[in-house]
Amino acid sequence: MAVNLSVPQAGNLHPVPGVRIGVAEAGIRKANRKDLTVVLIDEGASVAGVFTQNRFCAAPVQVCREHLLRGSIRAMVINTGNANAGTGQDGLARARATCTALAAQLELAPEQVLPFSTGVIMESLPVDRIEAGLPAAIADAKPDHWLRAAEGIMTTDTQPKAFSTQVSIDGALVCVTGISKGAGMIRPNMATMLGFMATDARVAQGLMQQLARELADGSFNRVTVDGDTSTNDSFVVIATNKAAHAEITSLDSAAAKALKAAMLEVARQLAQAIVRDGEGATKFITVRVEGGASTEECLKVAYAISHSPLVKTAFFASDPNLGRILAAVGYAGIADLDQTKIDLYLDDVHVAVNGGRNPAYREEDGQRVMKQSEITVRVVLGRGSVADTVWTCDFSHDYVTINADYRS
Amino acid sequence: MAVNLSVPQAGNLHPVPGVRIGVAEAGIRKANRKDLTVVLIDEGASVAGVFTQNRFCAAPVQVCREHLLRGSIRAMVINTGNANAGTGQDGLARARATCTALAAQLELAPEQVLPFSTGVIMESLPVDRIEAGLPAAIADAKPDHWLRAAEGIMTTDTQPKAFSTQVSIDGALVCVTGISKGAGMIRPNMATMLGFMATDARVAQGLMQQLARELADGSFNRVTVDGDTSTNDSFVVIATNKAAHAEITSLDSAAAKALKAAMLEVARQLAQAIVRDGEGATKFITVRVEGGASTEECLKVAYAISHSPLVKTAFFASDPNLGRILAAVGYAGIADLDQTKIDLYLDDVHVAVNGGRNPAYREEDGQRVMKQSEITVRVVLGRGSVADTVWTCDFSHDYVTINADYRS
Repeated sequence: MAVNLSVPQAGNLHPVPGVRIGVAEAGIRKANRKDLTVVLIDEGASVAGVFTQNRFCAAPVQVCREHLLRGSIRAMVINTGNANAGTGQDGLARARATCTALAAQLELAPEQVLPFSTGVIMESLPVDRIEAGLPAAIADAKPDHWLRAAEGIMTTDTQPKAFSTQVSIDGALVCVTGISKGAGMIRPNMATMLGFMATDARVAQGLMQQLARELADGSFNRVTVDGDTSTNDSFVVIATNKAAHAEITSLDSAAAKALKAAMLEVARQLAQAIVRDGEGATKFITVRVEGGASTEECLKVAYAISHSPLVKTAFFASDPNLGRILAAVGYAGIADLDQTKIDLYLDDVHVAVNGGRNPAYREEDGQRVMKQSEITVRVVLGRGSVADTVWTCDFSHDYVTINADYRS
Repeated sequence: MAVNLSVPQAGNLHPVPGVRIGVAEAGIRKANRKDLTVVLIDEGASVAGVFTQNRFCAAPVQVCREHLLRGSIRAMVINTGNANAGTGQDGLARARATCTALAAQLELAPEQVLPFSTGVIMESLPVDRIEAGLPAAIADAKPDHWLRAAEGIMTTDTQPKAFSTQVSIDGALVCVTGISKGAGMIRPNMATMLGFMATDARVAQGLMQQLARELADGSFNRVTVDGDTSTNDSFVVIATNKAAHAEITSLDSAAAKALKAAMLEVARQLAQAIVRDGEGATKFITVRVEGGASTEECLKVAYAISHSPLVKTAFFASDPNLGRILAAVGYAGIADLDQTKIDLYLDDVHVAVNGGRNPAYREEDGQRVMKQSEITVRVVLGRGSVADTVWTCDFSHDYVTINADYRS
């Protein structure tokens, strides 16, 4: 069902020196599923993460935040089948117990482990099964297991999501490889539900938090499926510092810009893959808002369009019922919006001019674009020169089916 | 498909002295449909309205606002099949032409007529058909035609919506009767798409605007189907001033309070009827948020729950996947929310305590409530003593079907 999303090939994913990945079947919620993933990181890596702004953030998110403050991260443990969210103090203790269990097997301190969980909310995390599964996951660990990890973190995803690239930094060829998961409860507000990216580039630890934030803002923080911000959104960036170039100590240097461009490309592909695999998605929609007075108002309009059930069902139906887009622009929350300055385009088709129907607009032109699997909605606000973009999908019967049956 | 919504009986709707209603088939979008309604108001009535906050408000909404400022309203003209929204300057001219046409037949000034349109957005209003249909609508006008009017303003509604009551004001028995329409694009932000209410009570014109606002805030401004604020929301309140009691000149008087209570009851039934008839609705959900520090934050939480596609599909499936409700509470936008203070109830079932699953909670208890057609979600924030309530419905396959096929 995913929209123009090809299955990654293991051979196209560059191993990142300093990172090994192992996957096991721990029977966390269902038997015979790869549901436990460990990521082992060599000593000396720079690590940072950004996490959900949901105030009901999951226990593992709280533990990740604590552990990242301590530094010296050496491993990650990721389970599916259970989100360990809405679980109170007991959930926090279970997230910590998971870290302690992995740390014991790797001879690390528990604070050197980051835990991640995804799955059903408000159920108790079966730490015993995770602990029992860890030896197999550790034994499985290899540098070229990125695809296995992408498979190991899937929930309602129909396809694994992994992208990789290489970039030359001061003459050294470095790798950037990442994976993500997610298909529903997607409106990341800082990062998305489980995105991991590693590079062997050398980046000072002090730059990592800002780098992670910038990458998330250009990728995961610009996608939405259903507007529901998850309790577990986590995006972690690792620089293993193995590459043969001088350490990057400023994000404004030429080397940093080259690295950031490569990393942003991977992050954006990972984020867009989540939308392409959005629950029930049949179309991939780019919502571009131009002529805004600020980024904030461009995003308000883009998200209002992207979250409107009426707009999304019209895309599903390939029905150019485009007044619904104008209505969403109108209620997006710009108090002094002047409707007589709004233009609307559907790909190359100029639908509305000065807030009214373009006299030259013909329904068959709108219909032609609406039938495509990839569509760009472009709104021009006529208020300034700022533009921004959000990626989303349509809203189909299958979304209802998937989410009505999710726990069965 | 409507949830526990009975068809109103004409005999139960009290005619309001000073108001006559006529309906006709004008063929505005489709033939053989009651699509044109006129409301004729005797001289001397007090009239006020509240309208959508959508910045893409429809042409008739703009004209209503202008005409209400002039006062002396004597008639309303309401068409379905075309919203006259997203139509620019031409749409404004057409809304004015409709008023001029009705005014000419009634020997009024155009400014004494309020126009209302509902239907498809961004298509040109066929004024000629409305003008041709007006004589039949005027000839049809009678005091006991409230049910006909409720039928005449329907679009995707499956049932007409009309409620009526009587209340004694200083010994005089006065009537309150109202109608509404709407099933989709429902998240009124000031009022809902076409709600009209009349009473023969005597209310000073100077009080009417505040009265209309208070009624809307306690009714139409507390319901949502899909979170889409319409371009055409309009709620008009008429006091014909025919009753035999002293004019109400303060909203704090005992007479005013008695009248307001009666009017609010009718307004709330009209608003809830829209949710009960929400597109594809199978359940009527009351979302009550208690223990808030302000009305604003209670409503943020209530609307986050009410708009979450994940929560709404879980209700459709009768699946007590209640972590989704906690997730919505968490992303509602209260920056300093402490998840360890949150309690969640489903009717009488205590689901979550201090932000975690209640140890005494049993899934079968949640399941029992979820299977009902009427469910109350109660969230206790533990931040203060303010409470508020929003009414909504679930999200089903039929919502997708209805909105994917709306224009066909």
